[in-house]
Amino acid sequence: MTTSLFGKDILDLQLLSDDEIRLIMDTTARYEKVMQNGGRLMNLYGKTLATLFYEPSTRTRLSFETAMLKMGGSVISVADAKTSSSAKKGETVYDTGKMIESYSDVAVIRHPVTGSAKELADGSDKPVINAGDGAGQHPTQALLDLYTILKEKGKIEGLTLCLAGDLKNGRTVHSGAALFARMGAKFIFTAPEALAMPDEITESLRKKGVEIEIIPDLMQAVKKADVLYMTRIQQERFEDPAEYERLKGSYEVTLDTVKAAKKGLTIMHPLPRVTEIKTEVDSYEGAAYFRQAANGVPVRMALLALVCGCE
Amino acid sequence: MTTSLFGKDILDLQLLSDDEIRLIMDTTARYEKVMQNGGRLMNLYGKTLATLFYEPSTRTRLSFETAMLKMGGSVISVADAKTSSSAKKGETVYDTGKMIESYSDVAVIRHPVTGSAKELADGSDKPVINAGDGAGQHPTQALLDLYTILKEKGKIEGLTLCLAGDLKNGRTVHSGAALFARMGAKFIFTAPEALAMPDEITESLRKKGVEIEIIPDLMQAVKKADVLYMTRIQQERFEDPAEYERLKGSYEVTLDTVKAAKKGLTIMHPLPRVTEIKTEVDSYEGAAYFRQAANGVPVRMALLALVCGCE
Amino acid sequence: MTTSLFGKDILDLQLLSDDEIRLIMDTTARYEKVMQNGGRLMNLYGKTLATLFYEPSTRTRLSFETAMLKMGGSVISVADAKTSSSAKKGETVYDTGKMIESYSDVAVIRHPVTGSAKELADGSDKPVINAGDGAGQHPTQALLDLYTILKEKGKIEGLTLCLAGDLKNGRTVHSGAALFARMGAKFIFTAPEALAMPDEITESLRKKGVEIEIIPDLMQAVKKADVLYMTRIQQERFEDPAEYERLKGSYEVTLDTVKAAKKGLTIMHPLPRVTEIKTEVDSYEGAAYFRQAANGVPVRMALLALVCGCE
Repeated sequence: MTTSLFGKDILDLQLLSDDEIRLIMDTTARYEKVMQNGGRLMNLYGKTLATLFYEPSTRTRLSFETAMLKMGGSVISVADAKTSSSAKKGETVYDTGKMIESYSDVAVIRHPVTGSAKELADGSDKPVINAGDGAGQHPTQALLDLYTILKEKGKIEGLTLCLAGDLKNGRTVHSGAALFARMGAKFIFTAPEALAMPDEITESLRKKGVEIEIIPDLMQAVKKADVLYMTRIQQERFEDPAEYERLKGSYEVTLDTVKAAKKGLTIMHPLPRVTEIKTEVDSYEGAAYFRQAANGVPVRMALLALVCGCE
Repeated sequence: MTTSLFGKDILDLQLLSDDEIRLIMDTTARYEKVMQNGGRLMNLYGKTLATLFYEPSTRTRLSFETAMLKMGGSVISVADAKTSSSAKKGETVYDTGKMIESYSDVAVIRHPVTGSAKELADGSDKPVINAGDGAGQHPTQALLDLYTILKEKGKIEGLTLCLAGDLKNGRTVHSGAALFARMGAKFIFTAPEALAMPDEITESLRKKGVEIEIIPDLMQAVKKADVLYMTRIQQERFEDPAEYERLKGSYEVTLDTVKAAKKGLTIMHPLPRVTEIKTEVDSYEGAAYFRQAANGVPVRMALLALVCGCE
Repeated sequence: MTTSLFGKDILDLQLLSDDEIRLIMDTTARYEKVMQNGGRLMNLYGKTLATLFYEPSTRTRLSFETAMLKMGGSVISVADAKTSSSAKKGETVYDTGKMIESYSDVAVIRHPVTGSAKELADGSDKPVINAGDGAGQHPTQALLDLYTILKEKGKIEGLTLCLAGDLKNGRTVHSGAALFARMGAKFIFTAPEALAMPDEITESLRKKGVEIEIIPDLMQAVKKADVLYMTRIQQERFEDPAEYERLKGSYEVTLDTVKAAKKGLTIMHPLPRVTEIKTEVDSYEGAAYFRQAANGVPVRMALLALVCGCE
């Protein structure tokens, strides 16, 4: 029997098999090609996507909506679901799932509370895609990151990925590390001590035999990395503002960082970036962060089409 | 000449003839069948619906948008019309009607002030559908409730409907009672004294020969009812919080309520529900409230198509 | 080589040639005719418009979205871009341009800061249309105003346009005056002293040989005008509330104004109007302001189709 994601929820990458992840990557590549060649798709005509954002994430919402529309589907949207009339009246996310199942063929949810995507999926008989719930998963970001590495580098197995910045709070790097490790990547973790990768994640990866180096200094780290995955260090994370001021400069990517790096370094970032990657770096050919953001559309097209059984 | 709703506003159910209501029910059933069989509709392709929500009602807005999109139409939306730039600059609802007539083929309005739907309709030459205005009508909710009863029970004539909960403030039960009575229903009104059905409504129905029993006790009422239409009792409606605490338990539907009820009781609720129907009741086959919500889509498809003359 | 706007940004009318403006007018007339005859367009099927509104402008947003949808295109929308998650995290408008280029084929931006439309266009390789940025341009409003004059009067060359109301702060009249002058119009400027047309605009027009009369009295001005372009006088613009109260009555159009006017006066207004045009004037055949608003749709259809190369 062939691999299929028809009718499945996409809540947590650990629930996806290697075959399913390969299917998502292959389908993404196919849609990207159709778009590049100016083709028009109608495979989701008559289907409706509901986007439920209980916390704002403009980029994620727009890329899902774009993905649906590009396949002829339509979109209903609650851009500020937290203040929706139903949420205010005390409706559970489970009951919202019951409602949204009547209105749409697939739903995307972003929620500040871990487990909310699962609760919506429990209520709804239609597929639900988790677009980030609290400290939980953000599987579609990790999948588009994987797709970007595969496209930029041709492979991920055996590559050294430097995850840098705020590794303590970054949902993106947590979801991503597990996925990249499974696909054969090695890691360098580069963060100030206060924002280091949580021990349980590092230990869990090492137990599975994943090679990890801890190199807090960015200039040293990039000498050994094939890919630099940069994230933002937010001032609010520091108790002592002076500590933030002292550190932030060390976690900014400049043309000097590029010069110090291993040749061919690919630079990624989940965006939006503020000062952690200088605009001078944008014209460097290995600066992949805008291409990475663009990959969000075909990856989400693949996911929407696959769970609807219309890929 | 055949019955037609082409070009008509749907503001108030009293302005619809029995034939027009039958036409809406028949058209709803037809669209529901097309969807169940996986058909695709294009009858509103090229038509645009404008949804103007001066107070939020996520469920109502989404079901109208879904209905329009399922027929190939498109949607423009002001989800928070109250704070729109035009409303802030002091534009009248009449002038908004003039504007929206240029942009769309049909408009849906929700507004906190009674009469606003009529004012929009006066400004616009295109059809306007009232999605609730103040203490006024909410005709599409009453129509989907009627459709639900017809579908669950096969008929409404001669049935006993128990309207329960907050009968004083519920726009839903006020619109509904008049419509169900006209279609031949009998009533039990079940509410705490402070939230009883307004006398003028009860008297007006009785003058038309409608049979009404007042049974404040829910467990007693369900023994005689074919349909229980439950609404929410809101704490804010009580001057004395202790009174609310004392009463609320008596207006909650549990499996014990179902056991005490006449066999085959159908349970409805306009949703969202909070605690007034326990989730344990969801698996009872007569629990129709999620099916009722789903009926909102084909009923609104029928209305949109009929007023556009494209049914 | 024929005139084309394919791939071009529409940021500032001064960057458009006379031929390009004629192309926009001709294309608008063509789309208007198709719509009047009940035709259906698919020329933008598969294309996506992104609307980014950093300040609300419901009318402008809805007319752009309607225009896109009427040609089979689709829309992604950030109705409140100022509070979007990306803007809050400090993303520059330039980076937003990079993002939106991946998601859409054309973008429309409204922003409180002059120059923001240019910044978005610098970031994006796809065409950007300025829907008003600060004290800067609002080119699509001026184009729909021009189209309205051409349609109502058959020509603009040699006509006398009375611009009235708040000429100091009105972005609409600033963009418009330059365009109408270039097309051969003469002007009367009618405003209280505190809200007079800025000297640099008046001088700049006169240097180009444009005939301008300053007639602060509205009743006198309309005796000589072919078109009255009315704008709103806002109380907030006056330091002295008594001054506002004294003046506002003089800048309100009534049936008496119509009686005093040159025969056939066309009355325009960018809308929303509050009290500056009495509703009694609505039934006067020269009252063109609602027709003017409706012209916003075909003008924006023309612009969207032209910059996408799909007209």
